[in-house]
Amino acid sequence: MVDQTHSPKSKTNLFLEQWGWLKGYNGAIFADDLVAAIIVTILLVPQSLAYALLAGLPPQVGIYVSIFPLIAYAIFGSSRVINVGPTAVISLMTAAAIAGLPEGTRLLSAAILALLTGGILLIGGLLKCGFIMNFVSRPVVSAYITGAALLIVFSQLKHVLGVEASGNTVFALFGELKVNAKNANIAAVLTGSAAIIILWSVRRYLAFGLVRLHVRSRTAKLIARTTPIIVVIGFILLSAGLNLSQTHNLRVVGTIPSGLPPFVFPRLGFAEFQSLLVPAIVIAIVAFVDSTSTAQELASRARGRIDANKELLGLGASNLVAGLTGGYPINGSMSRSAVNFAAGGKTPVVGIVVAIFMALTALFLTPILKALPLSVLAALIIVACFGLLDFKSLWRTWVYSRSDGITAVATFLAVLFLGVQWGVLIGVVLAMALHIKGTLQPHMPLVGRFPGTEHYRDADRFNVETNDHVKTLRIDESLYYANARYLEDKVAKLIVDNPNMTDLVLMCTAVNRIDASALSSLHEINKRLKRSEARLHFSDMQSRVKERLYRSDLLENLTGEIFLSQHEAMKALEPEPDWSQLSDHMDIH
Amino acid sequence: MVDQTHSPKSKTNLFLEQWGWLKGYNGAIFADDLVAAIIVTILLVPQSLAYALLAGLPPQVGIYVSIFPLIAYAIFGSSRVINVGPTAVISLMTAAAIAGLPEGTRLLSAAILALLTGGILLIGGLLKCGFIMNFVSRPVVSAYITGAALLIVFSQLKHVLGVEASGNTVFALFGELKVNAKNANIAAVLTGSAAIIILWSVRRYLAFGLVRLHVRSRTAKLIARTTPIIVVIGFILLSAGLNLSQTHNLRVVGTIPSGLPPFVFPRLGFAEFQSLLVPAIVIAIVAFVDSTSTAQELASRARGRIDANKELLGLGASNLVAGLTGGYPINGSMSRSAVNFAAGGKTPVVGIVVAIFMALTALFLTPILKALPLSVLAALIIVACFGLLDFKSLWRTWVYSRSDGITAVATFLAVLFLGVQWGVLIGVVLAMALHIKGTLQPHMPLVGRFPGTEHYRDADRFNVETNDHVKTLRIDESLYYANARYLEDKVAKLIVDNPNMTDLVLMCTAVNRIDASALSSLHEINKRLKRSEARLHFSDMQSRVKERLYRSDLLENLTGEIFLSQHEAMKALEPEPDWSQLSDHMDIH
Repeated sequence: MVDQTHSPKSKTNLFLEQWGWLKGYNGAIFADDLVAAIIVTILLVPQSLAYALLAGLPPQVGIYVSIFPLIAYAIFGSSRVINVGPTAVISLMTAAAIAGLPEGTRLLSAAILALLTGGILLIGGLLKCGFIMNFVSRPVVSAYITGAALLIVFSQLKHVLGVEASGNTVFALFGELKVNAKNANIAAVLTGSAAIIILWSVRRYLAFGLVRLHVRSRTAKLIARTTPIIVVIGFILLSAGLNLSQTHNLRVVGTIPSGLPPFVFPRLGFAEFQSLLVPAIVIAIVAFVDSTSTAQELASRARGRIDANKELLGLGASNLVAGLTGGYPINGSMSRSAVNFAAGGKTPVVGIVVAIFMALTALFLTPILKALPLSVLAALIIVACFGLLDFKSLWRTWVYSRSDGITAVATFLAVLFLGVQWGVLIGVVLAMALHIKGTLQPHMPLVGRFPGTEHYRDADRFNVETNDHVKTLRIDESLYYANARYLEDKVAKLIVDNPNMTDLVLMCTAVNRIDASALSSLHEINKRLKRSEARLHFSDMQSRVKERLYRSDLLENLTGEIFLSQHEAMKALEPEPDWSQLSDHMDIH
Repeated sequence: MVDQTHSPKSKTNLFLEQWGWLKGYNGAIFADDLVAAIIVTILLVPQSLAYALLAGLPPQVGIYVSIFPLIAYAIFGSSRVINVGPTAVISLMTAAAIAGLPEGTRLLSAAILALLTGGILLIGGLLKCGFIMNFVSRPVVSAYITGAALLIVFSQLKHVLGVEASGNTVFALFGELKVNAKNANIAAVLTGSAAIIILWSVRRYLAFGLVRLHVRSRTAKLIARTTPIIVVIGFILLSAGLNLSQTHNLRVVGTIPSGLPPFVFPRLGFAEFQSLLVPAIVIAIVAFVDSTSTAQELASRARGRIDANKELLGLGASNLVAGLTGGYPINGSMSRSAVNFAAGGKTPVVGIVVAIFMALTALFLTPILKALPLSVLAALIIVACFGLLDFKSLWRTWVYSRSDGITAVATFLAVLFLGVQWGVLIGVVLAMALHIKGTLQPHMPLVGRFPGTEHYRDADRFNVETNDHVKTLRIDESLYYANARYLEDKVAKLIVDNPNMTDLVLMCTAVNRIDASALSSLHEINKRLKRSEARLHFSDMQSRVKERLYRSDLLENLTGEIFLSQHEAMKALEPEPDWSQLSDHMDIH
């Protein structure tokens, strides 16, 4: 459960709290924010192009969603270090959502998708739906991200091979790649694999090497993180110098229209609404869970906390703005937020400065990016995804708990073989189902009085007083639809096994809730006992449960009574305790 | 939970138990069975035609699924009084599943659907999946049946109006009916509404009237139940006498090919398999839950019990046979099973005799049915569905429990507006989600020692010894993914509020389970406490939970210890109790 006790007393307070960092903001803090913003921008420029490519959209769309949405998040978001913008998993989900639509409408559909996602997140925030996050278990998140990362690697192989391939599952992609691989473009293969090897080595060894050269660990990590821009510039020079796009038919980014994103309000037809609603819901859930997990992780490192409901508002606002500026759905980026945090970014000003830098990029730098090979962008994505693969945690989950393991593996396989949009849905539903399956048969022991006391204990484990006429069943779980029939069966068996039973007491100490199904089972039990000429009683019932029962018609038909305590029930029903059954061995533990 | 303790020791026993009724079977029992079979057949002949019509299939298909599948159920089923065959809800679901397919392939698709449904039920039975039933709460079942019955009434209005209309939702049906109503056929409207009024009056008042004429209540009910056949015969005579199909263009059943059902093995292409698999799964679930509820209800009236896993096998076998004899999915009929029970049917012989009567009908009686107006069959369906509408229980559920009410209403609306196949899925998922939502924020009080004892109680409610350095949080719920983050937050708040805390003990008496997400939260809590220079301990942990933890790496990193009991923990961590904080007011309640 994400912080909900932390909510402020009034709207004014909310605003003040959100903008609390403004008080005391000074040149020194701005210097920190500026450095962080420069480093985030260096990371973001190539990523924005690469993720737009992954989403199946023109490269400038990646830059567009890195401008105004960041400002919206700075105003409405709750985390001080999260960097929102294009990310790998949400780009892949966008690609899957718009893949079936005609080529000409994809750009518009992507913007509508962002609007819908933003609307859903905003409504979620206003209705305080932050609790939804608790339905997505960690194994599901981690299996989902691993599956999506693997699927993304597969989806980018076509650019490294320089061939065409489309499809939203590993099956479909593999089929097309196998057919087209023989037409691979040699320049794409060479630049792509070289870029993968260089980026991977830098990521893996550069920081480590620098530390051995006595560079401070944090500085070394930041240098290693920003190296991709140098690799990208190197390949741009190589591609432009050898004119690879002409001489070797290498696919490059090409001419990007320069200028700021257009403000448009995409009209929403009913057909688009219908076909994009379910993908938008799934994207909203994944964007929210993913961003909030990252924000919580970073906030906890700084001993702070974040508010899931405010996070919904911030992400909602930035997705709406992304939709209105010709973009596509975005969320908080794990890699860029971590870099921001490590570089010492302190306030949402980082996001605003990054947005200004990206606007300058959109205005003036696009001609430079023209010769950038798509194979190199694909290499950037692939290496980024290597970092998201977490088979170790999948394995650890499997070893620790079989039912969590099943959920995680099902999520992972669903992403790969059914498509990215199914993974989370299947994971969430399976996790709920397996949890409920674990509570289908609660512990319901027969109890008896501990001799000479008012305590009642399990008849199986203790030597307690019991008798043939009055039986007491202690129910160690809330009664709800999934275990109501089990109780019915337990009582049915009790009736068969105890022909002399005249009274059955259900001891409800641990019953926190009786839902409508359980109520109906209690009706049934009452009727069955009546047919066997036995009465049904309750004892130790919590007052809030009792109040609910008074609203139903069970008590009118009840053959027995509701006793305040188990001891009162036994005093009333069993005036002559049957001391003969008492054994002399009386241990408690 | 349906009886699982009742399962026999060996396969031989299973067989003997299932066929136990054969021992001692005699002429008197056969006489009872024969009477019941005659009454069930009288009910089944018109129903079989009507439900085939509802499923969008030729009338003879309804007769076909009332022959061999009944024999299969008599052999493999577990209930002695259930009558399987065509039913309203499953017929509607079949109609929805095959509606999108080309006219020419529907018959084959319906048979494939029955094969798939049978296969799923059989596999479910072999894997002992009877527990699945517990996921479908009573409010969902009752709202689903009410919604489906209302949808069926709407779908049959076209026959009463004598016009065309298709669609699987109330929206679609209403739209078409509004357009076509002006072309209504006067003969259809007159025969249809007359049949509805007669059948409804008979159902509502005949039994009551007969009882006032001193007929025995049970006999009166049985007479009222079998009246439909007389109404049907009356309308056949009217239609044939006036030749309504020619003179007034009234749609009638027409020529039904006579003869026994063909044995065919429909070939299953991958495309059919894919498009029919999800409908087959939903049909299997509904058929199973519906039949088993009916069987349980009737078994409990006879003070018996049924086995859900055997029920899966029986229904699976009869659906497979339905598929192999050119039929469509079937299940246990509530109305015919109740009639069978009331008429005194004792054993599965009833099903076999009914099958023989239906085979005779297929061979010799089809020419008689030729002139039967479709409007009268529709009237039969509509009046049968009136009996299934249960708005009272929907309302009672809403009043008793808001979350059950929401689930029921969502199920009901989903059936009407999204289509019959969505109702159960939405209801099941919503019921799980709302149950889990109820456990998101478990009770986790700080506890302290009750002075002079080894008992530890809520610090908020009792005057107990506490101190600033060692805090104990008692966790009153299993820790699992949905409440793991709540615990994290609770501890984070505790750290902020108690800067002097050096040790935190989690008292785990009521923790029955720690899943992978909760484990990961405990890791996180351990790390956070470490950063605040505090240690994490556990006490009173159940041994099976402890064993699971030993399989993880939490204990290696744990800053504190696992104490056998809370008292041991306090003795170890707090050698000098701080008596000053103890108040002299010490009430327990």
